Amino acid sequence: MKNTLGNNLTMTIFGESHGPCIGVTLDGLPSGFPVDQEAILEDMEKRKAVGKLSTQRHEEDIPQIVSGLFQGKTTGTPLTILIPNQDQRSKDYESLKGRLRPGHADYTAYKRYNGFQDYRGGGHFSGRLTACIVAAGSICKQILASHGVQIGSHLEQCGTIQDRPFSSKEEQCAQEIDLVNQKTFAVLDPQKEEAMKQEILLAQQEGDSVGGILETAILHYPAGIGDPIFDTLEGLLAHGLYAIPAVKAVSFGEGFNFAQLKGSQANDAFVYDQTIQTKTNHNAGINGGISNGMPIVIHTCIKPTPSIFKEQDSVDYLTKENVKLKIEGRHDPCILHRARIVVDCMCAFVLLDAWMEKASLVPFMEDAYAR
Amino acid sequence: MKNTLGNNLTMTIFGESHGPCIGVTLDGLPSGFPVDQEAILEDMEKRKAVGKLSTQRHEEDIPQIVSGLFQGKTTGTPLTILIPNQDQRSKDYESLKGRLRPGHADYTAYKRYNGFQDYRGGGHFSGRLTACIVAAGSICKQILASHGVQIGSHLEQCGTIQDRPFSSKEEQCAQEIDLVNQKTFAVLDPQKEEAMKQEILLAQQEGDSVGGILETAILHYPAGIGDPIFDTLEGLLAHGLYAIPAVKAVSFGEGFNFAQLKGSQANDAFVYDQTIQTKTNHNAGINGGISNGMPIVIHTCIKPTPSIFKEQDSVDYLTKENVKLKIEGRHDPCILHRARIVVDCMCAFVLLDAWMEKASLVPFMEDAYAR
Amino acid sequence: MKNTLGNNLTMTIFGESHGPCIGVTLDGLPSGFPVDQEAILEDMEKRKAVGKLSTQRHEEDIPQIVSGLFQGKTTGTPLTILIPNQDQRSKDYESLKGRLRPGHADYTAYKRYNGFQDYRGGGHFSGRLTACIVAAGSICKQILASHGVQIGSHLEQCGTIQDRPFSSKEEQCAQEIDLVNQKTFAVLDPQKEEAMKQEILLAQQEGDSVGGILETAILHYPAGIGDPIFDTLEGLLAHGLYAIPAVKAVSFGEGFNFAQLKGSQANDAFVYDQTIQTKTNHNAGINGGISNGMPIVIHTCIKPTPSIFKEQDSVDYLTKENVKLKIEGRHDPCILHRARIVVDCMCAFVLLDAWMEKASLVPFMEDAYAR
Amino acid sequence: MKNTLGNNLTMTIFGESHGPCIGVTLDGLPSGFPVDQEAILEDMEKRKAVGKLSTQRHEEDIPQIVSGLFQGKTTGTPLTILIPNQDQRSKDYESLKGRLRPGHADYTAYKRYNGFQDYRGGGHFSGRLTACIVAAGSICKQILASHGVQIGSHLEQCGTIQDRPFSSKEEQCAQEIDLVNQKTFAVLDPQKEEAMKQEILLAQQEGDSVGGILETAILHYPAGIGDPIFDTLEGLLAHGLYAIPAVKAVSFGEGFNFAQLKGSQANDAFVYDQTIQTKTNHNAGINGGISNGMPIVIHTCIKPTPSIFKEQDSVDYLTKENVKLKIEGRHDPCILHRARIVVDCMCAFVLLDAWMEKASLVPFMEDAYAR
Repeated sequence: MKNTLGNNLTMTIFGESHGPCIGVTLDGLPSGFPVDQEAILEDMEKRKAVGKLSTQRHEEDIPQIVSGLFQGKTTGTPLTILIPNQDQRSKDYESLKGRLRPGHADYTAYKRYNGFQDYRGGGHFSGRLTACIVAAGSICKQILASHGVQIGSHLEQCGTIQDRPFSSKEEQCAQEIDLVNQKTFAVLDPQKEEAMKQEILLAQQEGDSVGGILETAILHYPAGIGDPIFDTLEGLLAHGLYAIPAVKAVSFGEGFNFAQLKGSQANDAFVYDQTIQTKTNHNAGINGGISNGMPIVIHTCIKPTPSIFKEQDSVDYLTKENVKLKIEGRHDPCILHRARIVVDCMCAFVLLDAWMEKASLVPFMEDAYAR
Repeated sequence: MKNTLGNNLTMTIFGESHGPCIGVTLDGLPSGFPVDQEAILEDMEKRKAVGKLSTQRHEEDIPQIVSGLFQGKTTGTPLTILIPNQDQRSKDYESLKGRLRPGHADYTAYKRYNGFQDYRGGGHFSGRLTACIVAAGSICKQILASHGVQIGSHLEQCGTIQDRPFSSKEEQCAQEIDLVNQKTFAVLDPQKEEAMKQEILLAQQEGDSVGGILETAILHYPAGIGDPIFDTLEGLLAHGLYAIPAVKAVSFGEGFNFAQLKGSQANDAFVYDQTIQTKTNHNAGINGGISNGMPIVIHTCIKPTPSIFKEQDSVDYLTKENVKLKIEGRHDPCILHRARIVVDCMCAFVLLDAWMEKASLVPFMEDAYAR
Repeated sequence: MKNTLGNNLTMTIFGESHGPCIGVTLDGLPSGFPVDQEAILEDMEKRKAVGKLSTQRHEEDIPQIVSGLFQGKTTGTPLTILIPNQDQRSKDYESLKGRLRPGHADYTAYKRYNGFQDYRGGGHFSGRLTACIVAAGSICKQILASHGVQIGSHLEQCGTIQDRPFSSKEEQCAQEIDLVNQKTFAVLDPQKEEAMKQEILLAQQEGDSVGGILETAILHYPAGIGDPIFDTLEGLLAHGLYAIPAVKAVSFGEGFNFAQLKGSQANDAFVYDQTIQTKTNHNAGINGGISNGMPIVIHTCIKPTPSIFKEQDSVDYLTKENVKLKIEGRHDPCILHRARIVVDCMCAFVLLDAWMEKASLVPFMEDAYAR
Repeated sequence: MKNTLGNNLTMTIFGESHGPCIGVTLDGLPSGFPVDQEAILEDMEKRKAVGKLSTQRHEEDIPQIVSGLFQGKTTGTPLTILIPNQDQRSKDYESLKGRLRPGHADYTAYKRYNGFQDYRGGGHFSGRLTACIVAAGSICKQILASHGVQIGSHLEQCGTIQDRPFSSKEEQCAQEIDLVNQKTFAVLDPQKEEAMKQEILLAQQEGDSVGGILETAILHYPAGIGDPIFDTLEGLLAHGLYAIPAVKAVSFGEGFNFAQLKGSQANDAFVYDQTIQTKTNHNAGINGGISNGMPIVIHTCIKPTPSIFKEQDSVDYLTKENVKLKIEGRHDPCILHRARIVVDCMCAFVLLDAWMEKASLVPFMEDAYAR
């Protein structure tokens, strides 16, 4: 469905980096939910540029809800949010016209749209579009929170520096989520935070960029949600997460580490203690594509920003000539710390949508029992 | 959409491990395509149990095409394939009733379906359902092949043993794909093949199991296919691949390794040589979610089979008691070598569907130029 | 979605008139529902040929549920029903090959599928495929009935003969629905029933055929279901009903008669009597696309069967020659009385699916109130 | 999908009558199409209020394309159009709060959204939202026109007055379409036009309203488009047309008149004359749900506007009391002449989407032949 995601709840995104605005429509929200617009702004802030570590393009990024909200509460009809573009510098891109930036979507957009794409600032492929995911997903996050679900991410790895992982103890993990959700640069270990920032600044000085890995934990998501075969929680979450530019790998729990585990190490034994739980959580709260009530743990790899200031070999697709390319303008040496809230918000959207699918059956399942 | 995947082309899967049959419906196929039923059988063979390394449940697995095929060619209407179940031993599962097998979907299916799931042999969650993906995807693979697209996977890692990667040179990679596509146990390096088999047999003797990683390469898929934001090729492929039981991680190209690369290392410089290409292929043939004509390279991690013969801690959900569980019956010590053809077939389905989406626009795009 | 309909609940149909079987997959059913297979058979009987008024092709039409049912109850995973084809006479169609039957889909199928369609007995376009709608929709009807919803249709008009309409009094209408649901030839007025049968027999003797109109009433469907803009109940029901071959018109309540009413005549005034109701029901229980709790009343026009035995002008698409065509074989002089249960079952499917969409929101809407 | 329609091409609508703006997103457009914004404005004019026959609410209705258009041509990414609301008088609705307007969606919206709907001016249910259908469908109409497809509607019946039907001769019908497409009040027979206007004015003086029927003709749509079973052209068109508020009946060709025709009268005999055609066109260019190349003819019934100025019986849902209701404000005595362009634009959207579905298969079907 191209620019629409979801089943019961859908998110449709539109806009280009240098157009008048970007926007997003959420359709299928429950009515009567009191939207906390301050909380949306806080999430928008986390995605925004911060100091030297980020781009110098400065956008207010104040989302304007133009439909689906009445007297502060959702109406249940489509909720559309517009985010104006204000600080474009389109001329930065004029010199690039035809010159393909390595690692970017310039060439593939040209092939996909036969040369009619808006090439300014990456157009519809700009990371700026993730502001829409944040604005929309932030509302989903609020709805989940009102049902006790907690979501947070930290920079598990930035360049060569690794943070410590979220605690495997649920209570402690909950505190860690609270902690990182108050931070702009979400790292658990303060020393690692400094080291990461140094690594980013160093890369920036070299005209280069840095990537990393985010670890996301979701607590208190109910058991029994997700579907077999195609709409597994893993499949739905990965589908959503790959919508974030620069994501090239998504894994759950032990992830690729499962390859070297034995079954006896990888299985999570069950134990009954008030409720059915698992002793370990290698499988990240998901079995057979369906939640089991344990924390959902996701790893998302963000590649280093492709906009670097070093000279690169490239091609001009208008002249078919090999050229040297040197990108100018305002760019992030690292987007990992900004991507973290995008990941949180995308997970919130997917998990709320999946929950609704299960909810659609409940009245009919309960009745069946009575027969 | 639960048990249906795809947009222009859809795949719907049904059936349980111990029912009369499992089956799959492909809707949206082009008409007039001559289906090579022998080639489907060859793919089915690759998924089947082989000797000591696999389960002793033996199924003929001869797919019966009951609709959508007329005089050997696709009609363009839904093509449904039935695969009979013949060698069930449902009594193996009677003793398990209520006892949750760690690492399996028993508990989550119980929560999802309120206890009404068919629990015999994993029911709808059985790996047996992947036979449907193979049968349907094999046809997609044929259609892609008739347009020059080549697909193949090998066991990049099995337990602790690593095969050498596919060559980064396209011509050599094409030969390697041909090679592994003729093998039942798809490994490039013969010595590593033996070592892997040993590791599986050893685990089997210990009543344990082994996982691994598959590397998949797709050659000659055209540039310009895929969509921005949500229907990225990465998102679509990952969504499909997570439908394969035991998949817990999917990455593209450098995957998680991107975390420690600099932008200058991760970017693929462009070069013009008859056509626009990239010098390297870290991004695995996909930029901005859209194919760039270079090989698509995917890594899929398969966790070790959860059915092990060691005693495990578990819970009986009927009695809510902690129990010791010892699985009996016929199970695979490793499914990696069988999963490989499932991955190939799933990729073929997803990539054919995505191609159709682009094709739907072509007549309208060409006309536009003329104006 | 071609051969799949629905959102939360989906119905996928496959098969050809002269293939080994036809079939249908229902995905998204609640688990634990006890399916009454006898009731399905009764509905299948209503669709079957009856005596002289129908085709002499005789099919047992015993639906085989091959998945999604365990110990008599739905599992919640895809429920697939196969219906074998037994009494084909493919040779009846050999002489027709290339000769386009007027009023049939021969020409359009040829254009749609480039000549690769299965032309025997109408192939995938055969009215026989409606047996799938009955088998699947019958289960939906049972689920709705367990929630108090009552559905029935009668032959409002057959050729030139008109039956009296369903009573506008709900209690009496309920009795009338019960009455027609016990009949094979569903007419309220016994005298009109005889006259209709005579008209059909007369047409048959002339080698001709007869059409008509069905009136459908649905009682006790809850208020507040359906969606604004696109997924209106009218839009969803019409989309489904046009899937029944030979349907060329669908209207709600006053239908085309609204054209000559004034607003003051067409509006249904509200009145409070224990619950909010309308005094009249010109709008057929639907306002703004959403149910208001009053009876839903639908009119569906079935054109006369295109298979007639009179000589007709036609074209042979293989030779591009004008030809005279005389259809042979076994055909219905009227399908109106058989189509009636197909309409009931289709409505049941659509209305259950729409209900689930609303249900998906309920847990989140209730919670919102509490804040 | 609630507020999204379409498969390859999707239309998503958002907004409320008294919010800051309404809007629509078209996703899946071909890139490079030069959008004629003047032509969109002309279509918007046709939908607008005209003189005494319409509401006195005056909106500029100048669509603002905020994405998906670059240098005058479609980019192929989502094209979003915003239409500001300017002339609201929300206080007109304050006195109505809780009081259900008969024939409107007030009650059903209340039940659907648990009282949280925006009730001002009908909120999301307002006929004003059809401006979005016009703006988006107008672009689709342009794309179809660039491929030779011609679309037009006239007022077949307004109140008790009937216009003559479109000619059954294609050439003459083409001229008639050109004629009505230049008119604001689209009637073929000038005398009937006057009579209709009189009937509307008379109803207006009485504080009442008038309905009617639109006849739509679509010429030169290619044969072979549409799908069997569910995505029939009739099903898709009806699904779309029921999105227009006040539509309660949709039929094709002979429509309900088929009930009294014999098969020998209803069938359209084929004849070969350069191409395969039918001698008559009772089936309105569609057989088996698929286009046959003949004109597509649709009848759409628009009920009389529910906003009348006569006193009506109603209920206050807040107090549960029976009340007398007298609507004030600015309302249309008839919307038939305004709805006509909405019908044209909706048909254009549906038919372009269906065409893309067929186009998606073409490259694969052609290749198949070569084998």
